[in-house]
Amino acid sequence: MAKYAGVSTSVIRRLPRYYRFLGDLLDRGVERISSREFADITGLTASQIRQDLNCFGGFGQQGYGYNVETLHAEIGKILGVDKLRPSILIGAGNLGIAIANHIIFEKRGFRLDAIFDSDRGKTGLKVRDWIVMHTDTLESYCHEHKPLIALLCIPRQAAMESVDCLIEYGIRGFWNFSHYDLSVRYKDKVAVENVHLGDSLMTLSFNVGEVLDD
Amino acid sequence: MAKYAGVSTSVIRRLPRYYRFLGDLLDRGVERISSREFADITGLTASQIRQDLNCFGGFGQQGYGYNVETLHAEIGKILGVDKLRPSILIGAGNLGIAIANHIIFEKRGFRLDAIFDSDRGKTGLKVRDWIVMHTDTLESYCHEHKPLIALLCIPRQAAMESVDCLIEYGIRGFWNFSHYDLSVRYKDKVAVENVHLGDSLMTLSFNVGEVLDD
Repeated sequence: MAKYAGVSTSVIRRLPRYYRFLGDLLDRGVERISSREFADITGLTASQIRQDLNCFGGFGQQGYGYNVETLHAEIGKILGVDKLRPSILIGAGNLGIAIANHIIFEKRGFRLDAIFDSDRGKTGLKVRDWIVMHTDTLESYCHEHKPLIALLCIPRQAAMESVDCLIEYGIRGFWNFSHYDLSVRYKDKVAVENVHLGDSLMTLSFNVGEVLDD
Repeated sequence: MAKYAGVSTSVIRRLPRYYRFLGDLLDRGVERISSREFADITGLTASQIRQDLNCFGGFGQQGYGYNVETLHAEIGKILGVDKLRPSILIGAGNLGIAIANHIIFEKRGFRLDAIFDSDRGKTGLKVRDWIVMHTDTLESYCHEHKPLIALLCIPRQAAMESVDCLIEYGIRGFWNFSHYDLSVRYKDKVAVENVHLGDSLMTLSFNVGEVLDD
């Protein structure tokens, strides 16, 4: 039974945001904050924040507000960013390399252990601290090192073809940048986070249209 | 007055997803689809889809379902993906280059016209069809070419420092990959789409924890 089975997806989606803003406050030396001030910063309402945090037991004291350091640590623990889950990245194209270079995995609950690509021309390529391996070695790698998470920076078709194998090899979580939507098919077996940058860009397109009113 | 001022953010956020799935159906030669079948594909409920589309006038016929091509075109028009809004990308680091190479702007309502970076070592660098320009030339470029959209692939501090100028130069929309949250401060003046890849990764961290129950 999942620990937070009753908590809605939208509440969960707001937690990383709280965590991020609390981290900023910590960096600026802020020790405590009222839910109202916190609402101003995050662009939400104080009552929403209180409700969200109550799903996990509260953490605030009436009239005192939140202790920034404690709340940051508690939300971090709920999010599991204190873990270092063994992860692999598949697809050393532009996007894969950018992800490997750009993301600080260790602060988000993951440890990137290896990068794979099916293009032999990329085998041996150095990306930050990793040497790209050929996908032929993926199965034996998984048996030996037991990664739990796969970051998919591969095209749609390749993702469709490799997901079943990866699940068989023990992968339980996907950070999926391919255009193939994994969530619908595998939702009970594995955790999936689909990143559709195109969707985000289309949302901007809509909102720009609203601002420009053209 | 914005055209769709009454429509909620969550409905708008689902439109790109509808558009994407309808595009897949079109590619597979599907001509019409019931809201129930469409619900199965998208992982939503039929009533939610009907409600969402009713915000824009419906498009379906009782007992007939949706014409895939028409609905795809209509949602595309609402999203504004038929536009080619002049855009610039700022920050030719790993992420900026990956974004320039990876995203098909023309299918999302944008046309990427130029790439800028403050690092003189990058001036003249070729990225796909673009030659990186120095940010010193940004102001004169904006006056001459009047870009409407800026893609920010720069660090937090650089984003904080450049946003006011960019708005002054005529930028009305930001696709923001920096860790600086623009939305709260500028929400009425400009459209902002913040992409927090770290938030997405933390959401995966949470959901993996739920699946593994550790």
